[in-house]
Amino acid sequence: MTDRNLTEKVKVELADRSYDILIGEHVLLGAGKHIKSVLPDAKCAIVTDENVAAIHLEALLENLKAEGIEAAPIILPAGEATKSYAHLQTVIEAIIEMRLERGDAVIAFGGGVIGDLAGFAAASVRRGMNFIQIPTSLLAQVDSSVGGKTGINSPQGKNLVGAFYQPRLVLADTTVLDTLSEREFRAGFAEVIKYGLINDAGFYNWLEQNWDGIKKGGKERIHAVATSCRAKAAIVARDERESGERALLNLGHTFGHALEGITKYQSDVLVHGEGVAIGMVLAHAFSARMNQSSPDDTQRVKTYLEKVGLPTDMSGLRNHVKSANQIMDFIAQDKKVSRGNLNFILTHGIGQAYIAKNVPAAEVHAFLTEALES
Amino acid sequence: MTDRNLTEKVKVELADRSYDILIGEHVLLGAGKHIKSVLPDAKCAIVTDENVAAIHLEALLENLKAEGIEAAPIILPAGEATKSYAHLQTVIEAIIEMRLERGDAVIAFGGGVIGDLAGFAAASVRRGMNFIQIPTSLLAQVDSSVGGKTGINSPQGKNLVGAFYQPRLVLADTTVLDTLSEREFRAGFAEVIKYGLINDAGFYNWLEQNWDGIKKGGKERIHAVATSCRAKAAIVARDERESGERALLNLGHTFGHALEGITKYQSDVLVHGEGVAIGMVLAHAFSARMNQSSPDDTQRVKTYLEKVGLPTDMSGLRNHVKSANQIMDFIAQDKKVSRGNLNFILTHGIGQAYIAKNVPAAEVHAFLTEALES
Ligand SMILES: NC(=O)c1ccc[n+]([C@@H]2O[C@H](COP(=O)([O-])OP(=O)(O)OC[C@H]3O[C@@H](n4cnc5c(N)ncnc54)[C@H](O)[C@@H]3O)[C@@H](O)[C@H]2O)c1
Ligand SMILES: NC(=O)c1ccc[n+]([C@@H]2O[C@H](COP(=O)([O-])OP(=O)(O)OC[C@H]3O[C@@H](n4cnc5c(N)ncnc54)[C@H](O)[C@@H]3O)[C@@H](O)[C@H]2O)c1
Ligand SMILES: [Zn+2]
Ligand SMILES: [Zn+2]
Repeated sequence: MTDRNLTEKVKVELADRSYDILIGEHVLLGAGKHIKSVLPDAKCAIVTDENVAAIHLEALLENLKAEGIEAAPIILPAGEATKSYAHLQTVIEAIIEMRLERGDAVIAFGGGVIGDLAGFAAASVRRGMNFIQIPTSLLAQVDSSVGGKTGINSPQGKNLVGAFYQPRLVLADTTVLDTLSEREFRAGFAEVIKYGLINDAGFYNWLEQNWDGIKKGGKERIHAVATSCRAKAAIVARDERESGERALLNLGHTFGHALEGITKYQSDVLVHGEGVAIGMVLAHAFSARMNQSSPDDTQRVKTYLEKVGLPTDMSGLRNHVKSANQIMDFIAQDKKVSRGNLNFILTHGIGQAYIAKNVPAAEVHAFLTEALES
Repeated sequence: MTDRNLTEKVKVELADRSYDILIGEHVLLGAGKHIKSVLPDAKCAIVTDENVAAIHLEALLENLKAEGIEAAPIILPAGEATKSYAHLQTVIEAIIEMRLERGDAVIAFGGGVIGDLAGFAAASVRRGMNFIQIPTSLLAQVDSSVGGKTGINSPQGKNLVGAFYQPRLVLADTTVLDTLSEREFRAGFAEVIKYGLINDAGFYNWLEQNWDGIKKGGKERIHAVATSCRAKAAIVARDERESGERALLNLGHTFGHALEGITKYQSDVLVHGEGVAIGMVLAHAFSARMNQSSPDDTQRVKTYLEKVGLPTDMSGLRNHVKSANQIMDFIAQDKKVSRGNLNFILTHGIGQAYIAKNVPAAEVHAFLTEALES
């Protein structure tokens, strides 16, 4: 069933906190073995959500049991609202109740919501237990499970509370993505495209040719996930705590976050990856307007995102997005504008993103006004 | 007023997380200057409790203001119950509300309760802000403010949730201790004595000679606090995350914690340092019973603790402590007994504590039965 030759390994290099990401078909069915090789004696708490539990939990539990690993699940409601103080406390208390120790492990088995929440709980119980990621959404496999950012939302904003806490192992089973909704798959794919756009034009070209294969599964999907993990791992290794280069990962995210804020994080209106897709087009278009890149690149990105089925402009958000000022207000909140200037991820072209400091807020405003008129 | 020559500096060596502890009279009145030299541009949230705020907050606020440091207080109820999820959330939200960034600072201004809570909040807001300790109880100055353990209590036990998070600076003003209750001063002093007992017989001798001077204040008190900080800093530098040697700091704490648990953490019955005092006598007596140390040392410790005014046996707890089994139950819970054996901090004599593995629980039980009968 598993073609072991297809399993790829990406190493995240962080000195004594280094770890492997294994990416392949059915790596879930080797979970027990992989965990044992890293943590021979650990008991496990499996944090998951109702959707993932209904489809995939039994397979994981059976596999761990077969390897003699004691494990029990903590099943939470699905959705962003689960990244709350209340659910954090629920998870922490459940882990303590199981009498797990620092040497035992918390497994995050789900999308980015579960990974962020379970990771923060693992960081906090007894000031730090072992943590393992088994991401089940495309977004989680290529983005949130890599790099150690964990946390919950505050009533005042997303991801404002948390810890930098690295897992000991990440297992990304690409066949598990077959049960993900098409919309969530596409949204996660926006982040895959992002890695090409940041600094890997070759990967971007390959992605343009291989969307159908990636959607179908098999070795193209594995390559897309592994290349994304490798790209993020390299950036994280150089800047674990986001004091510089790691900001590149926010390409498309300043605009994207503003749109998510304006649409009040209602996932029926806009999910994160969709906001990022629109944001990446806007970032290219704004770069072109600032004479940093060619409008042809903007068009190329737009065309590909459309082919994938992602939104590429704000036309679908007319009921929510009313004015440039409204967007600027959210950007100011996100960025804490200093003296009218902003830090922004701009680009010189496909695969040539850069951190621009002191971008005049007035330019952004003028650009958005035009974008909303068109 | 301040005799600057008397200010001592202890460096906690933790690579890129190293920091200074400044100990002396009226260092509080230099707080603004000291903070500026470490964090030139930080705005500050001052977390404190009602008792400390009533007596000392104005002096701190004025001092920061004089240096042009923007600061606002977050005032919490005093007492162990404040180390809760609910107050953690209150503090985190208040910090976010102030729009502080990662480069800004959270100041813990109070005893160990405030230090543990504020430190965990600082670790968690935006995944880690700058943190400064201004400990105001003796226990906080010599113990909890040094070493980076932060956290809150779980309904299931003390300090089960938290982070290892180091401050950028610790300011210990020894004159602030003048307003501490005598009972709290003595309780904190039990931890000072502990450092002598662990590995510094010379310091223990000096303490025996200088209790009156330390109580009074001035240079003896500074020396006692600085030597304690230095002792803890050295151990923490070698074992930040308590994988070995740091356990020595638990001398007297296994018995002490059990007594605190049995008396349900009612501070009118027993405060932490009092439990530690009794625990240290028991640890010496148990070591003597196991032929590891001389009964003369036990007597010497007992005599000194009595002179200081600390409890040295369980006679004051007769209404609560009924049997050896009861104590063993709490020890088992604290330690998670593995196959009938316990890890314990024992001693070969004054200043010669060591980590004993596999101490038979039956021996501890027999010892406690005798101790309760006498
Ligand atoms: N830590 C980081 O670095 C980082 C990076 C990016 C995003 N994030 C966070 O990740 C979260 C978004 O992650 P997400 O998009 O995975 O959301 P999610 O966890 O809510 O998952 C999306 C939906 O897909 C379902 N699902 C997941 N796997 C499935 C599967 N295999 N089959 C069927 N259904 C499945 C989930 O139940 C959920 O309903 C956000 O909270 C975001 O802040 C974190
Ligand atoms: N983090 C660590 O490494 C570590 C180590 C030891 C203890 N602790 C924790 O520390 C806590 C105990 O600390 P504590 O004994 O300082 O308790 P505390 O913070 O409750 O302070 C004791 C009392 O003294 C008052 N007080 C403090 N300073 C004062 C002053 N200058 N003048 C007048 N009143 C003052 C407080 O308001 C409080 O009522 C416990 O929660 C314990 O778990 C942590
Ligand atoms: Zn994203
Ligand atoms: Zn103590």
